[in-house]
Amino acid sequence: MVNVDVAPMSVLNEVMEQLPRGAFLTVKYGNRLNTMTIGWGTAGVVWTRPIFMAAVRLSRHTFRLIEPAGNFTVSVPSDDSCRQALAFCGTKSGRDCDKFRECGLGTVPSRTVSTPIVDIAGLHFECKTVVREAMSPDLMDPALLELYPKRDYHTMYFGEILAAYRRVAE
Amino acid sequence: MVNVDVAPMSVLNEVMEQLPRGAFLTVKYGNRLNTMTIGWGTAGVVWTRPIFMAAVRLSRHTFRLIEPAGNFTVSVPSDDSCRQALAFCGTKSGRDCDKFRECGLGTVPSRTVSTPIVDIAGLHFECKTVVREAMSPDLMDPALLELYPKRDYHTMYFGEILAAYRRVAE
Repeated sequence: MVNVDVAPMSVLNEVMEQLPRGAFLTVKYGNRLNTMTIGWGTAGVVWTRPIFMAAVRLSRHTFRLIEPAGNFTVSVPSDDSCRQALAFCGTKSGRDCDKFRECGLGTVPSRTVSTPIVDIAGLHFECKTVVREAMSPDLMDPALLELYPKRDYHTMYFGEILAAYRRVAE
Repeated sequence: MVNVDVAPMSVLNEVMEQLPRGAFLTVKYGNRLNTMTIGWGTAGVVWTRPIFMAAVRLSRHTFRLIEPAGNFTVSVPSDDSCRQALAFCGTKSGRDCDKFRECGLGTVPSRTVSTPIVDIAGLHFECKTVVREAMSPDLMDPALLELYPKRDYHTMYFGEILAAYRRVAE
């Protein structure tokens, strides 16, 4: 496959249409690599930079990696072939298994950050964390509290999109 | 003009392309109404809801209104006719003047929130604040600190998009 650069703000409709069906949030810290399925996120322009915001619960294995790593990648499938891998990576923890091996997923080195992308056809963002914010239950609509029965609130990672491309078959 | 409903996630490319050139963030609290120019923001899906995230500095008049109001609207011009109004509303404070009167801008009542939209052709989001997060300088890339010489950090307002439509000439 080959990577074709895209303007990140020109593919947001496509990204946000796919996101509720699942995308991969990948983080590598040292020699520890993990990916998890995300269904939530926002993107846009902040601090004059193109930004993807990913939300990670405190309880997640990814949380332990993304905090010190300072970067992450987002891989958004362009077709349905990742359905089983997304289901697996959304329910199993990287503490207990190597999700890449279990799902037969490969990686491709990123151009700008230490975390690789998942080797799938689709849209990929390489992101450097520029701002983190922890959700506070005091600053939340009470209607959302049911999403946090274990009080494992999300931390928001605002990543500057340093590279954005579509990975397609040659 | 008439309003034509749109799926908010289907217009994000257009919103984020215009945003750096300016959009209106409007808030009404009690009988106090104000609008300000924003050039930053993100949008997507979080908490299973369509979300627009607006960032407001502590020093802004809008900050005093958006905190208690609990809702806001975003009006994204579809053409260049608002250029002067955007310049005015991005440099003057609602403390000192009535920006709507000064710019000859009208309002139209929203369908779902107490804050009206600005009566311009373009895309409009009616948003109910569901989560607030205050930026902390401790959780920020030092490279961003130059954007905050007065330490008036942004608070992020995550608004659930309750209505989204395009306002067009009849």
